[in-house]
Amino acid sequence: MRLYTYFRSSAAYRVRIALNAKGIQVDALPVHLRRQDGEQHGAAYRSRNPQGLVPALEVGGRVIAQSFAIFEYLEETHPVPPLLPEDPLERALVRAFALNIVCDIHPLNNLRVLEYLRSALGSIDADVQHWYEHWIAEGFRGLEALARAHSTAHRYAFGDRLTLADVCLVPQVFNARRFNCDLTPYPTLTAIDAHLTQLPPFVKARPDLQPDAEVSA
Amino acid sequence: MRLYTYFRSSAAYRVRIALNAKGIQVDALPVHLRRQDGEQHGAAYRSRNPQGLVPALEVGGRVIAQSFAIFEYLEETHPVPPLLPEDPLERALVRAFALNIVCDIHPLNNLRVLEYLRSALGSIDADVQHWYEHWIAEGFRGLEALARAHSTAHRYAFGDRLTLADVCLVPQVFNARRFNCDLTPYPTLTAIDAHLTQLPPFVKARPDLQPDAEVSA
Repeated sequence: MRLYTYFRSSAAYRVRIALNAKGIQVDALPVHLRRQDGEQHGAAYRSRNPQGLVPALEVGGRVIAQSFAIFEYLEETHPVPPLLPEDPLERALVRAFALNIVCDIHPLNNLRVLEYLRSALGSIDADVQHWYEHWIAEGFRGLEALARAHSTAHRYAFGDRLTLADVCLVPQVFNARRFNCDLTPYPTLTAIDAHLTQLPPFVKARPDLQPDAEVSA
Repeated sequence: MRLYTYFRSSAAYRVRIALNAKGIQVDALPVHLRRQDGEQHGAAYRSRNPQGLVPALEVGGRVIAQSFAIFEYLEETHPVPPLLPEDPLERALVRAFALNIVCDIHPLNNLRVLEYLRSALGSIDADVQHWYEHWIAEGFRGLEALARAHSTAHRYAFGDRLTLADVCLVPQVFNARRFNCDLTPYPTLTAIDAHLTQLPPFVKARPDLQPDAEVSA
């Protein structure tokens, strides 16, 4: 399997964590989201992944786009260790937590959207910063309440076992910190994050430890 | 089961289609996204669904947020008729198509984002319209290529059977039309949409046929 990735992509970061957690080795194929107006828009990459987004997982010559589709594929084909509980309702609650990040926080704050705010809407830095903080706050408020209800010891978001909720949480907290968001209203989320970021699958997936990492950009 | 819904919510629309396709009856609990500054933000709804978004499915007193988490729950608990193929890789490709809409088109164009553009960024109508059209075009370009590659007779997005790709496509095309987006570059998507919108599960899920529908708003 080969992973089209970019060191700083939050969605690629979460896929790297899931692969590491399951002990799956893949070849990394960096796609530079800024170089040449974004290599993800180029014909070469579009011919592999018509969606033109990163990450994507290549399996036997076919390409799976979308981080959550990759998660479900890995769960079905590499079920041990599982990243979802066994009970269907518990699985649904974990997915709902993860999907709040995947659907309703990250897509609003990713590179292409911030670039659009600047270029097409002429937003100044303060407006972009406020936009970023707004969607973090909108999402983290609910996730804090959910983590408080479902985390048993503030080590994992659900119960006391690693799930897709954790896999998605860490890259989003990482990005929120990078944009200097105030995280003091979310003590449960930051406690869970502090535990998770010490675990090997999370360390190994860190943006600064990837082959395509750049010191400052 | 009870569905927290709003007639015009695109994410609720897609869940209604999936429920109809599987022949599952639920009680509809309308949550008005505009009345009282949005009933979804109120304490009553937040106590049920801390994410504060619609739709949500209540099952035995517990609440599943996020349309895609609801899809996977229905697929696991009501597997017949299936809305995903059997083969893991085929399932992944269908999910990736659907998730492009669920993650990378709809969340950028929903009510709360358009309201933010107007109120916080002071965007004028033309800017909001351009924003809307931009993210439709960004997403539909890739989906058209995928549908051209995977649809056998332009009746369904994948092969010749109903899947989650179709369930997500129709509400997004409906919204694109509502915002007068040019759909001529996407003949495969519009042909599939024309077929699907005639099918009973799709007709019954239409916004204007819901109990909480309003003639104009």
